[in-house]
This record gives sequence, structure tokens and C-alpha cells, in this order.
Amino acid sequence: MASMNATEPPTARPLRLDTAQSDFEATFAQRLHWSADTDAAFEARVADILADVRARGDAAVLDYTQRFDALPAASVAELEIDPATLRAAFEALPAAQRDALQQAAARIRRYHEAQLEACGRSWQYRDDDGTLLGQKVTPLDRVGIYVPGGKAAYPSSVLMNAIPAHVAGVGEIIMVVPTPRGERNMLVLAAAHVAGVTRAFTIGGAQAVAALAYGTATVPPVDKITGPGNAYVAAAKRRVFGTVGIDMIAGPSEILVLADGSTPPDWVAMDLFSQAEHDELAQSILLCPDAAYLDAVQAAIDRLLPTLPRAAIIAASLNGRGMLVRTRSMEEACALSNRIAPEHLEVASREPQRWEPLLKHAGAIFLGAYTSESLGDYCAGPNHVLPTSGTARFSSPLGVYDFQKRSSLIEVSADGAQRLGRIASVLAHGEGLQAHARAAELRLEDQP
Amino acid sequence: MASMNATEPPTARPLRLDTAQSDFEATFAQRLHWSADTDAAFEARVADILADVRARGDAAVLDYTQRFDALPAASVAELEIDPATLRAAFEALPAAQRDALQQAAARIRRYHEAQLEACGRSWQYRDDDGTLLGQKVTPLDRVGIYVPGGKAAYPSSVLMNAIPAHVAGVGEIIMVVPTPRGERNMLVLAAAHVAGVTRAFTIGGAQAVAALAYGTATVPPVDKITGPGNAYVAAAKRRVFGTVGIDMIAGPSEILVLADGSTPPDWVAMDLFSQAEHDELAQSILLCPDAAYLDAVQAAIDRLLPTLPRAAIIAASLNGRGMLVRTRSMEEACALSNRIAPEHLEVASREPQRWEPLLKHAGAIFLGAYTSESLGDYCAGPNHVLPTSGTARFSSPLGVYDFQKRSSLIEVSADGAQRLGRIASVLAHGEGLQAHARAAELRLEDQP
Repeated sequence: MASMNATEPPTARPLRLDTAQSDFEATFAQRLHWSADTDAAFEARVADILADVRARGDAAVLDYTQRFDALPAASVAELEIDPATLRAAFEALPAAQRDALQQAAARIRRYHEAQLEACGRSWQYRDDDGTLLGQKVTPLDRVGIYVPGGKAAYPSSVLMNAIPAHVAGVGEIIMVVPTPRGERNMLVLAAAHVAGVTRAFTIGGAQAVAALAYGTATVPPVDKITGPGNAYVAAAKRRVFGTVGIDMIAGPSEILVLADGSTPPDWVAMDLFSQAEHDELAQSILLCPDAAYLDAVQAAIDRLLPTLPRAAIIAASLNGRGMLVRTRSMEEACALSNRIAPEHLEVASREPQRWEPLLKHAGAIFLGAYTSESLGDYCAGPNHVLPTSGTARFSSPLGVYDFQKRSSLIEVSADGAQRLGRIASVLAHGEGLQAHARAAELRLEDQP
Repeated sequence: MASMNATEPPTARPLRLDTAQSDFEATFAQRLHWSADTDAAFEARVADILADVRARGDAAVLDYTQRFDALPAASVAELEIDPATLRAAFEALPAAQRDALQQAAARIRRYHEAQLEACGRSWQYRDDDGTLLGQKVTPLDRVGIYVPGGKAAYPSSVLMNAIPAHVAGVGEIIMVVPTPRGERNMLVLAAAHVAGVTRAFTIGGAQAVAALAYGTATVPPVDKITGPGNAYVAAAKRRVFGTVGIDMIAGPSEILVLADGSTPPDWVAMDLFSQAEHDELAQSILLCPDAAYLDAVQAAIDRLLPTLPRAAIIAASLNGRGMLVRTRSMEEACALSNRIAPEHLEVASREPQRWEPLLKHAGAIFLGAYTSESLGDYCAGPNHVLPTSGTARFSSPLGVYDFQKRSSLIEVSADGAQRLGRIASVLAHGEGLQAHARAAELRLEDQP
């Protein structure tokens, strides 16, 4: 943890780099590096918790909840929060928070409904011979949503995980949220009400992941588990992958800002802060061809940092992992961004639509000066669960598609079976799978 | 391994069950059970191979290839098969195999192009205030395809993995295929040519997965690895998940046939065989309300089994894991199928469209008597890489979508920033993230 000195305000000096420096590549690569490697002893502890919950069910969940969350209970049923309690939490909120939650939820819902419409529907076509081919898209039956408790309790995460599941048509949405020493976050409970959570349990850690994956007498087994968590949760999710589906394992949050110098430096500084304030490992990077603009952002950092309550965390993040990089051009900045494949990518430019087509890999792309990442985090509509640590090279924001699955549909006509049977027979014999060949040949009118 | 007795042909007696039996649930559940659990020593061996390839690159790949595949080489470059060799393998095939490969590839390509059209395109919309929201869909840059060698060398797998990647627009498709003692399967090489593989290496096992995930001096690092393999390959894929994307870890292959008694029993028996011949752990299940029909299928099994070259494997699979289950009704059979979530689901009925809407979870659904699973395996068009072991509850056939990723697009207008900024500010303060709030507030015309 960063320490704050009561007399001197923290200072933040993101590393200044220039792509024209001879040692740029090595320095840049080293600063980017982050690894989630855990040791074998840690892995074994997680494996033990999973095995224990699988074997002992509710009793094991109770033990670990008492041990890790200091939350004693006589039964897991006592750890369930009923829907009336979720609703009451919502109704007890100040009007401004109630409205903000509802408006954010409505916008997130609308976006994910558009996503369902664009890419989540069944489709089919027929060949000339009447053979039908297609895919049927159906929702998952039941999913589990992990919501972190304690200092990182984010009601917006509840909206972002539960709403896409709800829009997809998932039958039951089970939320788990640890409540250390019984402290409940009322905004989290209210968000669960707004987002359509079906059942909620105040359990967390690897034991909650195990309960959702295997089921216990009280916690129903789910088909998929999504949502962020600490190292125990991440390791547990990785281990139950296959028994259930999981979303991507998240690393520290990151922002990359591409700037052409047209956005007020204060705005960009605050956007870098808003990533850095998550935790000391978060990474904020600014790429810009204009060295004077980088100076202006640094000056804004110096001026604005002391005004923020989380200044110590921000300073630790920027000093440890932040970078202000002068590039030769905006084109080079775009190419560098593609190598990083950032979670959040802001295009702080007066011509964002000029650069957008050059950007291939990113979780979310925020175009233009007005599109602060924080608007996307809460209420623009798109999901804030995004691929981190370069995984945007191969993975996508959480979406309706994560709560659906597809089944191929094939109905071969009698005519189609004649044409296809001959092809299948040749290939099956070529692979030495004669029963496959015979199954195709039995459907031929002129059997070989 | 099953043993063949030269004098007595193998017999296959799938377990006969009736859903009305009192012990049905327990017996059925026990017979369904399959676990991929591996021990810690095995996991450690795989971890060591991965770490070694990560550290020593090509040299480690060469060592393991010599040790495990008895294939010595002076460099990994020697293990690359150039495109001309792939083409030559294709051109040297008998005409019937060449044609079958090309026709299968054309049909698989057409299906995946329809899939791209139906669910793989970018989309966007604008709010009244001009704010743009959407998602940009882009292909992965480079993927790796694992193709098993040795006895289970399946050219159809090359088509099924490479064609969706090619249709998605993936820039480079790197194939790895072990060639124990240097034995190359010409159909596999020819299929790589037909499917548009970019580069091919004769390496396999955990070392090939490591080379693709981390890259070596010779093997380029990829963004995602797909394709089936043995326990080493599966464990290695699971471990590199996060560094690269992976497809589902496959268990033994399965078929479930729902029959109303209208399909010739010989056809259904051969379809059960065509799954069972894959390996002794493969599972074939027939559900039917008509006991006499189950008798007729058993008689067909008895008559047809001795005619098949792989009779011993088929018998071992059916005797160890096969089931013929009498259900109370077709409706009950559909409900049971949903609990199993089979990889392959045949609806051997004269009214397949009546039952299809009742079927929620399956990798691929084969409708009607003419639609043998083997037609789908090779050439109907849909992918034969399907979720196994009940994972169809939450996952999908391999498809174009596995070789694409999505980036959210957000461009908030100046007007939009006023409305959204107020919502984001309330929620960010509620989460204690003041820099997030300030970033939104800086864009307000009337700053609080």
C-alpha cells in the first residue's frame, strides 16, 4: 500500500518516454509487463476449498464464511437475502441515487437489447434439395454473479453482470457477495433489485465459487459464473472452468489515451486518475505526438492530484505503472495501442472517426473529448466488464452472447442424404471410421 | 483397451433402463458420470514443459519432439511443412478424396459465411442527443490449430477448425500436428491446403501448445489455440488460458438418439456405433418410449457389429457406457435429453419439428431419419467441434464468433455528456471513486 505523508501531498510522475529513444522498446515492454502468476501453495489452498465445498456442501460454506468473513451463521439459508430486502434497500436510497441507478440500468438494458437484436438471434437457411441448416440460440438456464464486497463493492458491477443475463433470457440469476463482519452495501443490494437478480447470498471467496459450481443443499448449481474477484476467486473460477462456464479472468484495470492535443489537459489528467484510483496496480498510459501537450498534462496532474481523496493510490499507480509517451505521429500511437490491446481506449482527438478504423484491439473505444471512460463505466450503456492485460486481442466485453449458447440445427432431406452421403463415406473411410461411413451409406438409395 | 478374441466376435449390450424403474435416477446418473480429473504429478509435468518452452524456446521444442515423437531434427525450421508440400499432398490424392475434401470444405465455408452474416457484423445506433453506441467486430490476428496425429488423425478436424477462422478473416492460421516417427497423414496435409492454413509445424503435445502460446524464435505466438488433443494438450491449453484464448476442453464424444420408432433400427444402430467407434470412453444413448423398438435396435446391434472393423472398440464403448432407455413418452425423453445436454442429439422421428422446440441444450441437433450424425461430422456444413460432457448447457459449437472479438464503441456528444455526466457523478460518488466522478463533472457546462 502507498503511504500518505500528512504534511506533503503525494506527487505523481508517470514515466516519460519517447518512441524515438533507442531504449524505448525495452523500457516500454518492461513497464507494460504484469503477471498473475501464483505459487503452487496458493493453488493448493484454493483446490482444497473447492474439494471441501464439493464434499461437505453447506457445512463447508458456513465454516469458510465464518473464518474468512467473520460472519457466523447457523445455516446457509440465513445467509440468503430475500427479494423484499433487496427492494427495501432500493426504496430506502436517496432519490438522486435511486434515479441514477434506474437511468443507468435503463441505458445498459437498451444497449444490450440492441446487442441481442444484432447478434443473438437464431438463423437458418435451406439448400436447393430442402436440407435445412442453421443455429438455434437459447439462454442459459441459471447463472451466478460474483460481486466483490469490502472496499471494492461496486453496485455498477451488479448492473453490468446481471442486466445482460436478464436481457438474454436467463431463467435464474444468483448473486453472491461477501459481507465481511456482516457489513452490507445498500447500493449493491439496491442494484441487485434494479437489475433483476433472482436470489442473493452473502458468501464470497473460493467457497462461493465452489457453491455456485457444484451446488449445495441451499445454493443451486449454476451453468456459468461471471464477475470480478480477488486472487482466490480468480483461481477458483479457473479451476471450475469446464464444470461451469466462466468469463475472462480479469487483471488490473488499464486505460490508454490517444491524444492529438485538442482535449483540455485537465480532462485527460482526470481520466488517467480515474483508472489509477482503482488500485496501485492499475495502469494509465497517454500517447501523444506533441511533447508540449504531455507537459501540460503533467502540470494538470500536479495541480489536480492533491484535490482527490484517493491521491495516494493514484500516485502509487502512476509512479509505478503510468506512462506519458511521445510518439512520432498519431498513426504510430494507433499502432502502439494495437500492440497493447488496452481494456479502455480513449481517442482524445478532434477527429476520432479518423483514427477509429486504425484501432484493432481494445475492450472499449471512447471517441472524442466528451467521452470520458467514467461515462462508459456507469451509464453510457455498453458493458464495463472488459478484457484486460492484452486479452482484447482475443476476447470481448461481457455481453448478451455470454449468457446464450448455440445449437447447430441440421435436417437433411432424402435428396440431400444422397449427395452428402457420398462425400461423408469417402472422408470417413479415409479416416478409418467405417461405422461413420456405413451410417451415411445406409441412407443411400443405391447402396455401395 | 478392449481385447479382441479371434474366434468369438465381440458382443455389445448397452445397459437397458426404464425411466419407470425405481432405481433409474441413480443408475442413469452413475452411467453418465465422466471426470477429466488428473493428478497433481501429471499437472506438474505439464507445467514443467510449458515453463521449459517459455524459457528455452526452440531448443526445448526440439528436445520434447525428439523424446515424445521420436522425431529428431536440427532445428524447428526443419519441422515446418511449407505450403508447396501441403499443396502437393492434395494434388497427389485419388480424385474421389480430392473431390470429397473440396465439396466438404465448400459446404462448411458456406455455412460459416451464413453464420458471419447472421451474427458476426459490427452494429451501432445513435441516441437522440447524437451519442453513438455500438460494437465493432474484428477478426483475431493469428490463431493456432492443434491437430492430433497418430491413430486419431482426422483431416475433417482441420477443415472444421481452419475454415471458420478463415471465414472470420483471421490473418494467419498456424497448424501444429505431431508426426510420431515422422509419419505424416497425407489427408491431413491436403486438408490444410484446402482449408487455407498459413503455416504448419510437425510438433505436438504440451510443447506445441507452449510454442503457440508464448512463441519461439521459429513458431510465432498466436492469440488463440483451438483443436482437440490428448490429456497433455488439454492440460496445457487450460494452463495457457489467459495468455491466449482457447476453445472448450473436449471430453469423450457422445451421441443421444431420441427415437419414436419410425426410423429403421439398422440406421439407429449404426449411428450409435459411429459414436462408439471413436474410443472406449465414447457414450451412445438411445431414448425411446417403445420397448419393442429398443429390442429391434439391440437385434440390429447384434447383427451389424461383427461386420465392422472397429467392433472391439464399439463393443467396449457400448458395454461400458452405452444405454438403451425406455421412457414414458417422447416428452420425457426430451426433458431427459435437456438434463444430459448431449454433444450430438439425433431426433429419429417422423415429426422432428414437433420435438425440436422442446430441446434446449445440445451441441448439434440432427433432425429426422436421414440426418445421420456422420453427415454432420463431415460435410453438412455446421461445425463438428461441439461442447461435450454436458457443457452444451453453457457453450456452443466452434464458429466464426470464436475467431472474432468485439470492441465497444462509444462517442458521447456534448449534449449527451450533460445527461450522462450527472448520472455517472452520483454513482461514482456512491462507490467512493471521486476521480471517476470528477472526470464526468469536468465535461458538464454547469460544473457542480
